[in-house]
Amino acid sequence: MRILIIGGGGFIGQKLAARLAQDGTLRGAKITALHLVDVAKAATPSASFKVTADTLDIVDRDAVDRLTAKGWDVIYHLAAVVSGQAEADFVAGLRTNFFGTLNIIESARASGTRPVMVYSSSVAAYGGEVPQPIEDWTNTNPQTSYGSQKVIGELLLNDYSRKGFIDGRGVRLPTVVVRPGKPNAAASSFYSSIIREPLQGQPAMCPVDPEGTKGWLASPRSVIENLIRTANLDSEALGQNRCFNLPGITVTVAEMLAALKRAGGQAALDQIDYDIDPTIEKIVEGWAVDFNPQKALALGMMVDADFDSIVSGFIEDELNGKIAAT
Amino acid sequence: MRILIIGGGGFIGQKLAARLAQDGTLRGAKITALHLVDVAKAATPSASFKVTADTLDIVDRDAVDRLTAKGWDVIYHLAAVVSGQAEADFVAGLRTNFFGTLNIIESARASGTRPVMVYSSSVAAYGGEVPQPIEDWTNTNPQTSYGSQKVIGELLLNDYSRKGFIDGRGVRLPTVVVRPGKPNAAASSFYSSIIREPLQGQPAMCPVDPEGTKGWLASPRSVIENLIRTANLDSEALGQNRCFNLPGITVTVAEMLAALKRAGGQAALDQIDYDIDPTIEKIVEGWAVDFNPQKALALGMMVDADFDSIVSGFIEDELNGKIAAT
Repeated sequence: MRILIIGGGGFIGQKLAARLAQDGTLRGAKITALHLVDVAKAATPSASFKVTADTLDIVDRDAVDRLTAKGWDVIYHLAAVVSGQAEADFVAGLRTNFFGTLNIIESARASGTRPVMVYSSSVAAYGGEVPQPIEDWTNTNPQTSYGSQKVIGELLLNDYSRKGFIDGRGVRLPTVVVRPGKPNAAASSFYSSIIREPLQGQPAMCPVDPEGTKGWLASPRSVIENLIRTANLDSEALGQNRCFNLPGITVTVAEMLAALKRAGGQAALDQIDYDIDPTIEKIVEGWAVDFNPQKALALGMMVDADFDSIVSGFIEDELNGKIAAT
Repeated sequence: MRILIIGGGGFIGQKLAARLAQDGTLRGAKITALHLVDVAKAATPSASFKVTADTLDIVDRDAVDRLTAKGWDVIYHLAAVVSGQAEADFVAGLRTNFFGTLNIIESARASGTRPVMVYSSSVAAYGGEVPQPIEDWTNTNPQTSYGSQKVIGELLLNDYSRKGFIDGRGVRLPTVVVRPGKPNAAASSFYSSIIREPLQGQPAMCPVDPEGTKGWLASPRSVIENLIRTANLDSEALGQNRCFNLPGITVTVAEMLAALKRAGGQAALDQIDYDIDPTIEKIVEGWAVDFNPQKALALGMMVDADFDSIVSGFIEDELNGKIAAT
């Protein structure tokens, strides 16, 4: 079992690599190689098998072809220019999210190796004039360039799988919180910031109205677990649409802040400043937050219990169980 | 008003050109130029304004750029490798339907001219596990490469319009019957054949079970009228999804054959041979046939009265009112 993670240096890629290193198996077979590629060389976890890393620009088709030629049983394609950046710099998003994804899928076709390909799509696939809740058969009508590029990747993944060129499966990730690290250019960055920074005694900015803004959220723990389960699925189980919504929970920002207070006290809550950013608010408003992810549940995907458990998971995994003095 | 029709040599392109030549106006303005491009030089109708034609391979980005640079108020993009061909020759479909459409839309963006762009998508956008009838918010889950490539074009059209690079509007055409001319590589070709050939005293092949096979059909007359109306729409009326289902009527092949008998008698019906083609049947079965095109109706699109009127329209428009002796 040879595994490639494209976007292996990112937050999800690193957690997935650590999990694979720990498990030692995928799809019922022993892992013999795990290779991480990203725009910068990623850190590699120690494991009982060989874990390597290299740089790759997925816009460079020749480089993608050289990598594909090495032969992979499972390719995780997690690489993307994030939503805020793809909206601000249209060409950057088009290059990485559109042409980069096309290169990966086309290269897999040309190689004839028919890998299992797990593709991370996004809640940003949804928007527009559709009834709520979002069902598995609701139209993907993205209202951002990032979302549009992700859905185009879904269509390619489905068609190339139907033709037998790859064995693709795509999962639309809810907004993943609480992310470790620093704020990034994703419009969803604040969903993590408002929990992560205060629990470490640092200020955070809330750019949206807490009562009026909801999120469709999943923890890193559940997303990593579901990325493993998605790779493990039998191809036949996926039916006529290989891309589906991962489960999440619908939470208002006000409810998130209440959970922050329960975990970190008033001192944590006092770290939040409110400064509405109309650009972010407009992007976030365009995202659907009410889902009925029946297909994912039927396929055995896991779901977080509640937002408090997401906060406590973050404290355990990223803060070694310690929060700033309150 | 300068108008470009890409795919101007095709059946729809030719009828649209004739209609524009006759009308002399579009979007409330006098037409000053109409240019038809296609893989072969198209016939041009006579008009009170200049009508020209040239060859264009939309896969050639430089050639597309040279054409775009001439400046067009309205671009109709009707060019495609049809469903049966795109399924049989994956690369041919990918090149024309995917890269060709990308070239046209990207070239329009690069030109900065923000043209109105009317894009012909297809009923083949639908398929997979979705409830019937198809609503405007039902997921596009194509089960052919042609359909996948068309939906990717829709996503580009929407996103480039949202960004203000073009003023796009896409219409998902029902199966257009009765087409003049000869059978082609489209899997839907038989829907026209079984009417067109018998009414001219010629044999035709029915490759599907008449009772078990339905079509979602529209006449050339209604499609051309709706392509005009779509160009005339105000941009604001289109909402958050600029691609919508044109109205059609749902008819079984058996009902089509009954209408054939009413128009051409038993002699016409006797021209039909039945030879089930599993490849065609599988493609056609994947197409949705039950639609609720509320958005199109709200936007003022027209709908055919019934299949008999489609047959009589064909006899008037294409056979000069004459059918083979019965």
